[in-house]
Amino acid sequence: MDIAGLLTSAGINIGLCLVLLSLYSVLRKQPSNACVYFGQRLAQLQSKGRDHFSFDRFVPSPRWIVKAWEASEEEILACGGLDAAVFLRIVVCSRRIFSIAAVICIPFVLPLNYFGKEMRHRHIPSESLDVFTIGNVKEGSKWFWAHCLALYVISCSACVLLYFEYKNITKMRLEHIVGSSLNPSYFTILVRAIPSSAEESCSDSVKNFFTRYHASSYLSHQMVYRSGTVQKLMDDASKIIKCTSTEQFGSYLKGCGLCGGAAHSFKVLSSEPESVRSRNEMVNPELRDKECAAALVFFKTRYAALVASQVLQSANPMSWVTDLAPEPHDVYWKNLSIPYRQLWVRRIATLLASIGFMILFIVPVTFVQGLLHLEQLQRRFPFLRGVLKSKFMVRLITGYLPSVVLMLFLYAVPPTMMMFSTIEGPISRSCRKKSASVKVLYFLIWNVFFVYVSSAKVLERLGLFSSPKDMTAQLATAVPGQATFFMTYVLTSGWASLASEIMQPYGLLCNFVYKYILRKKDEPSNGTLSFPYHTEIPRVLLFGFLGFTYSLMAPLILPFLLVYFFLASLVYRNQILNVYVTKYESGGQFWPIMHNTTIFSLVLTQVIAIGVFGLKRSTVAAAFTVPLIIFTLLFNEYCRQRFHPVFKDNAAQVLMEMDRKDEQCGSMEAIHKQLPSAYCQFAYTPNILRKAVSLNLCKDEDDVSICIPEDTNPGSKPAQGNDSRGPSSMEIEELKK
Amino acid sequence: MDIAGLLTSAGINIGLCLVLLSLYSVLRKQPSNACVYFGQRLAQLQSKGRDHFSFDRFVPSPRWIVKAWEASEEEILACGGLDAAVFLRIVVCSRRIFSIAAVICIPFVLPLNYFGKEMRHRHIPSESLDVFTIGNVKEGSKWFWAHCLALYVISCSACVLLYFEYKNITKMRLEHIVGSSLNPSYFTILVRAIPSSAEESCSDSVKNFFTRYHASSYLSHQMVYRSGTVQKLMDDASKIIKCTSTEQFGSYLKGCGLCGGAAHSFKVLSSEPESVRSRNEMVNPELRDKECAAALVFFKTRYAALVASQVLQSANPMSWVTDLAPEPHDVYWKNLSIPYRQLWVRRIATLLASIGFMILFIVPVTFVQGLLHLEQLQRRFPFLRGVLKSKFMVRLITGYLPSVVLMLFLYAVPPTMMMFSTIEGPISRSCRKKSASVKVLYFLIWNVFFVYVSSAKVLERLGLFSSPKDMTAQLATAVPGQATFFMTYVLTSGWASLASEIMQPYGLLCNFVYKYILRKKDEPSNGTLSFPYHTEIPRVLLFGFLGFTYSLMAPLILPFLLVYFFLASLVYRNQILNVYVTKYESGGQFWPIMHNTTIFSLVLTQVIAIGVFGLKRSTVAAAFTVPLIIFTLLFNEYCRQRFHPVFKDNAAQVLMEMDRKDEQCGSMEAIHKQLPSAYCQFAYTPNILRKAVSLNLCKDEDDVSICIPEDTNPGSKPAQGNDSRGPSSMEIEELKK
Repeated sequence: MDIAGLLTSAGINIGLCLVLLSLYSVLRKQPSNACVYFGQRLAQLQSKGRDHFSFDRFVPSPRWIVKAWEASEEEILACGGLDAAVFLRIVVCSRRIFSIAAVICIPFVLPLNYFGKEMRHRHIPSESLDVFTIGNVKEGSKWFWAHCLALYVISCSACVLLYFEYKNITKMRLEHIVGSSLNPSYFTILVRAIPSSAEESCSDSVKNFFTRYHASSYLSHQMVYRSGTVQKLMDDASKIIKCTSTEQFGSYLKGCGLCGGAAHSFKVLSSEPESVRSRNEMVNPELRDKECAAALVFFKTRYAALVASQVLQSANPMSWVTDLAPEPHDVYWKNLSIPYRQLWVRRIATLLASIGFMILFIVPVTFVQGLLHLEQLQRRFPFLRGVLKSKFMVRLITGYLPSVVLMLFLYAVPPTMMMFSTIEGPISRSCRKKSASVKVLYFLIWNVFFVYVSSAKVLERLGLFSSPKDMTAQLATAVPGQATFFMTYVLTSGWASLASEIMQPYGLLCNFVYKYILRKKDEPSNGTLSFPYHTEIPRVLLFGFLGFTYSLMAPLILPFLLVYFFLASLVYRNQILNVYVTKYESGGQFWPIMHNTTIFSLVLTQVIAIGVFGLKRSTVAAAFTVPLIIFTLLFNEYCRQRFHPVFKDNAAQVLMEMDRKDEQCGSMEAIHKQLPSAYCQFAYTPNILRKAVSLNLCKDEDDVSICIPEDTNPGSKPAQGNDSRGPSSMEIEELKK
Repeated sequence: MDIAGLLTSAGINIGLCLVLLSLYSVLRKQPSNACVYFGQRLAQLQSKGRDHFSFDRFVPSPRWIVKAWEASEEEILACGGLDAAVFLRIVVCSRRIFSIAAVICIPFVLPLNYFGKEMRHRHIPSESLDVFTIGNVKEGSKWFWAHCLALYVISCSACVLLYFEYKNITKMRLEHIVGSSLNPSYFTILVRAIPSSAEESCSDSVKNFFTRYHASSYLSHQMVYRSGTVQKLMDDASKIIKCTSTEQFGSYLKGCGLCGGAAHSFKVLSSEPESVRSRNEMVNPELRDKECAAALVFFKTRYAALVASQVLQSANPMSWVTDLAPEPHDVYWKNLSIPYRQLWVRRIATLLASIGFMILFIVPVTFVQGLLHLEQLQRRFPFLRGVLKSKFMVRLITGYLPSVVLMLFLYAVPPTMMMFSTIEGPISRSCRKKSASVKVLYFLIWNVFFVYVSSAKVLERLGLFSSPKDMTAQLATAVPGQATFFMTYVLTSGWASLASEIMQPYGLLCNFVYKYILRKKDEPSNGTLSFPYHTEIPRVLLFGFLGFTYSLMAPLILPFLLVYFFLASLVYRNQILNVYVTKYESGGQFWPIMHNTTIFSLVLTQVIAIGVFGLKRSTVAAAFTVPLIIFTLLFNEYCRQRFHPVFKDNAAQVLMEMDRKDEQCGSMEAIHKQLPSAYCQFAYTPNILRKAVSLNLCKDEDDVSICIPEDTNPGSKPAQGNDSRGPSSMEIEELKK
């Protein structure tokens, strides 16, 4: 591809982005789209009336950009929680790293590449883009020292930035833990693999075990029931309620009847939960059969729960398995009923399935690769020759089509990986998302990068990496050659995905269908979408990965990347502030993924650089890069020692101080009272939500809250700290301007 | 090599073994050698008099074999502790697996190999040994089904045996924990990386931290001091004693003066340990500078110590790092003073050093390999031609010399690896031994097997494994070809090492020098050797590894291996009962190494089998082996889930029951009183021991007990369960018959 091709591609994308962004700035002002662009809760608050017409509504305006830019970290934390803040930090940190890389590479490395003497220069517009890559520098040139130095600067600045971000985010995580002191999950552990016995029910076993071994700190417990379908158990619940006194449980029907459930029934329950529960069991022995070998156990202090979750309970490691429970909204109830001994098989099976999926994906990637090699395609499919005579068509096909095709195929990946992660059996939604993120990330790096780079070879000379020792050399020859493709990939996949993210075309379409085709009057409550970390984090990290590997080889990619990261920080800020609602938190667990990926990218870049220096016979530069790899790996190991344990476990000191504070100010008893009603396996599903599910308005079924929504029942989320705070309708009006 | 060569080699070895074993049966009856063959404690008990002469003393007798054979597991446990029992189980389990393999392979697989039609048969004595390998079976033969079936039988029986052994050893470990209920290590944790502060000493920091966060269970603590030299601190100790009242600490000099120390001073200490300690510190502020950022902290219950050791204490994971303390005799005091933040660097450095050592070792292995290829040697060194004309010399050189040379080189490996493991910084001797075992094992498998197999190729056609995809094929061609060498390796390294192990030539020599050259009258107390697990376990596992890989390829190796394992179980039993004294225990931690190695061997065998089947164009047999690999890996994963956690952590349930029992029978207070004196960093070193060290009588300096030996101070080991029990002099007389 030549410069003109790249400019065509850039032009199309810039135009598209501008059109979409202006369209967005108009669409967001339409009251009928509020539910798409301002999230479920805002929509509910303002839906009544005031549909007044003004000319201002149809003029594109950049005010949302200003708003997003001005949002402080506190606002982000308040709106989106720690995960959103960490995600934005990932974007911002990448932006910073590549700003430094651009400052180093554009003025210093790019001219060296361009004035290298390997290739002949042509007229600028038809200048091949390969002229700007490291491939143009002559063998044995002294200029490779500059490349080596630039690599040092980029690596060191990346490490320094990573270090301070990791430190900062660790601090934020600790503050988050201290700040969300009412979070019931700190008092709760999940016990699985409760050994079954003929004499006593599971519930009794749990009670006996914990009163025997954790007598001083055990508070109460709540069994997990086999879900089957929610409806079936709802029926059971109503049966129980009919059996027991209907007067006492008048308002209970809205809850679930098995666990503490809704807050307005909780006074009854918490005053005598034991008696109620035992009565339920006496009355309905059928329930016992529905008990899983899993339970949530509540403790008196956070420290006691932490201890109980971390210690190996029984001499048989396959029974009485304990974990800290997730937050109430984070629990993935369906998976709690999976027998514990299945888990390891499931984990292996999904691992194999993911690898299989990754390998099978080579087929479409190879197809896309074919589009870049037009001559070969023409040879195979002669009928294409007519189409490819037009210069514009050639530019379009080589510059734009391959990445569009790849992008379309890639849309199938996150749902598939999410499915695998669900089957794997995580106990919380955030774990599931994290696991899916990692899978999607591996997938992207493998398929977009490695297979793409090597499939170029496949078509050219039918030989994959044939041995490990010349893999470096192969990478070194293949990677710079593919720079063109990845530049267009950043343009199409990167920029366009941001525009589509902010436009929410799917939500918009659904909203349109719902309102104007089905002609419904009420707002389509599209189930308060939560942020799709499993698609966005891998995407951002993939661009970071591409940025590192190409910053030296083909620095021309950096401006495009910088635009992407700049736009991304704005768009995601806006989305977090306005669109997505945070219902659960992983507590910053996404940062270690970013850290590891960046280190991996750095090391791979360094390895490729060694390969390139070696190929270009600059052995001294290659030798000087080796210490950099060692330094990077040591830095990674240090961070793993210094920061990572905080992301795995909660520190005893922190939890104990929280316990002490609550005990001193006397709020502990109130917390204890609320605990039994915090987790609610089966809850009243409002019709409107069920409809939303059936209409498929929600991207992800599990993102639909099946607990009672906050507005109908303000007490159902009794113990969450800095959770999403709904702005008033006044604020909304202001926001929309 | 032909059959005659093998028989020569076998003959030499059998003769050597018989001579050495008879010699042993005579030597062990000589009273002057009692200290070599009956360990330190027996020697002490019987040294006085009764040196009566009898003819019986000079007649070889097999009675020791009978005694070793008859020893029950209880006796082994009582004499050698759990580790010795586990070690014998490793040997016995290998013996059983290879008995089954021999039953399958000798009657069924060996004839198939021999009557395969690939090679021409010659007269039996000069029949090449290659005729007995799988290389002789024709391409595409249907007989490979028998090999495949045999592989299934061997793999399944190995898995079944491994499973039951793992189960059994897990049970034994739990019983050991319950049995050694007085072990002070259960009450103790080691705290490292105590943050330093200007205001207070480390000791005060520890006290404040644990009284603040573990008030209910904290008992007391003991600082670790920078060791420098033992002597220097002994001086300090005597200074302190001079400063404080000399009357009160009259008998204290024999202890260490810094920590609880000897048992007869413990009454004074435990009655007012705090006051004594604080007085010491007031009097001698110099001591503060010698404090490390490490301390042993004692808790009131085992469970509390377990919890404190497992929970992440501080928000900074690099401070207040806790681990369960090792047993008092197991503590490797020198390493406790290593700053915690150095540890990860040390770990990486030793890893790299070990890998470097492994790679450099290729040189001698290649040399040994050369000895097998006589023609090539003759071509290079023409002067050898004269020597090599004699048939006997050729047999000797090809059949015996290579493995002797290799064995001599290999003697340098365990001490080197032990050094690496020491530098790594483990806190206990048992951890160090375990780590050294693993390193030596990797070393052996890599250098004896892989490099040997591939260096055969290096000499033949100068090409190492050039790519991963034909590595299987390369292994499949190279492995059967080297069967001859490994048969002789089993003969020389295996059998001879056992004979040398039982003879203890080094100890015998030292004893001789000490008694008859230096003409000393007193017994050379050679410091109560502890079992050299780091040399013996890798050796046994290496033979297991060879057994698996060759059981199908060259079943002729199996009888030799069976003899080895049979002899090994006798010899090691005898050594454990008579020679080695167990001072510390890892609690069966060696079993997981055995398990993992066996699984690795199995999988490698299966991979090689697939390669061989593939090369021999028996694709169906190759395809049928694939599920076996999957099954083996799944089995391994299951065992890892089911048993391994018990070897990593102690189960809370078990410890709590022990706590409860002690509380109920009122022995808890006595334990609490003894705790502060259980660990003793600097102890009185008796002159005799120091002399032993200087004479270098002890294989390993660290095996010398530098605490007060039990006989002079029967209370210094107050809280060890089934530790080595000294037999009476009556028993010794009986033993020696």
